[in-house]
Amino acid sequence: MVTKNQIKRIKSLHQKKYRKEHQLFIAEGIKVIQELLQSSFVLDHLYVTNEMDFGVPTHQVTRVSADDLKKMSALTTTPNCLAVFHCLESKTIDFSDWVVALDDIRDPGNLGTIIRLCDWFGISHIVCSSETVDCYNPKVIQATMGSVSRVNIVYTDLAELLQSAKVPLYGTFLGGENIYEMKEVKPGVIVMGNEANGISAEIEALISRKITIPRFGNLQQTESLNVAMATSIVLSEFRRSVFNVQ
Amino acid sequence: MVTKNQIKRIKSLHQKKYRKEHQLFIAEGIKVIQELLQSSFVLDHLYVTNEMDFGVPTHQVTRVSADDLKKMSALTTTPNCLAVFHCLESKTIDFSDWVVALDDIRDPGNLGTIIRLCDWFGISHIVCSSETVDCYNPKVIQATMGSVSRVNIVYTDLAELLQSAKVPLYGTFLGGENIYEMKEVKPGVIVMGNEANGISAEIEALISRKITIPRFGNLQQTESLNVAMATSIVLSEFRRSVFNVQ
Repeated sequence: MVTKNQIKRIKSLHQKKYRKEHQLFIAEGIKVIQELLQSSFVLDHLYVTNEMDFGVPTHQVTRVSADDLKKMSALTTTPNCLAVFHCLESKTIDFSDWVVALDDIRDPGNLGTIIRLCDWFGISHIVCSSETVDCYNPKVIQATMGSVSRVNIVYTDLAELLQSAKVPLYGTFLGGENIYEMKEVKPGVIVMGNEANGISAEIEALISRKITIPRFGNLQQTESLNVAMATSIVLSEFRRSVFNVQ
Repeated sequence: MVTKNQIKRIKSLHQKKYRKEHQLFIAEGIKVIQELLQSSFVLDHLYVTNEMDFGVPTHQVTRVSADDLKKMSALTTTPNCLAVFHCLESKTIDFSDWVVALDDIRDPGNLGTIIRLCDWFGISHIVCSSETVDCYNPKVIQATMGSVSRVNIVYTDLAELLQSAKVPLYGTFLGGENIYEMKEVKPGVIVMGNEANGISAEIEALISRKITIPRFGNLQQTESLNVAMATSIVLSEFRRSVFNVQ
């Protein structure tokens, strides 16, 4: 049984303001919950509509009706389980290896995909401008499939942090160096810009190497790569040198 | 003014069956419609809620109420314009350059992204298994942002077509060749598999070179790359040799 007040509290976690206040977030569905349970995230409570064995102490599990779960859920199709986890404290950004910086990424799906990509490519730190969508947004959590637990994500004044970083700052622009022809690429920060406006003028002024992913298709077309696609290409290209490749 | 019957007919285009029957599909929102108007697609009719200049003959434009447009729309947030276009006839697949083959891709967002990627990387032909989501699905159309008009997409018996193709067939698997270390890569077909099950056994038997995108992060984790991300990395890696790179 859950009370109306408990449902209300969980529903409030759909909003960034209350996630910040309570330092809690929600995750839904067996796969995502299982991934997070095996991670460094600490479970607050688990709500299930039927008997399910997550290996969680019984006092942390509450059986609820499908109707009640639907009220708590942030998804269109409500799964049969929802968990509340504690947010992790951000660690200091370590600039000794590649870092990804996000300048106002607004779409939760894009952020989720970028977090997964960083996890895949062994990038441990992401720094986000304050306007970037919250990584504990339910849609981001669902899209990361657990990788959010393996990447340190910091929200801060991006310009200020980048100004103090003593490493090369790379950003994607039209008319930069062809990424496939770049020489002497040393680890630094890869800045990815907003979906509609790209990298802001303030951040652009700090970029030390402008890079371009060349288009291979019809040059007349204006449509650009989606930011998550661009991130995957940049990370793949900058990481491939680990192998003894030509 | 639109009649109830006209609305019903347009709404029927949300379903593959009726798109196939009428050889029509819908596109919504200014940006996507503009892109398609400038492409090889032929407009059937345009519906707008307010005065908008698309440069379309007036007999092909109908002013409708926001309520009526909402009834026609396949989107959660209805834009202020919706267009009906004629489907394009598929051309024969040309195997002289890279071709992407999709073995049961089910998610419209993934297909849309893969079409955009092919457009970006100058891949002109995509061959899809009959079970792959329809490229005229409204969600695919919205996700492709017009690039669907620049890539020839054929639905067919994939195994049969690949059997007759006289080019190398590449597919991503665990334990294949490291994509970053591959030598003598000749243009052929890149097969990408279903989101949950990967490449089917029938198609796997035809693959001539199994490739793997190595993970750079924590090897203990099971989560794999999303199929659209994997496609972007494979295309970038196979296309980069166009440049005089080391």
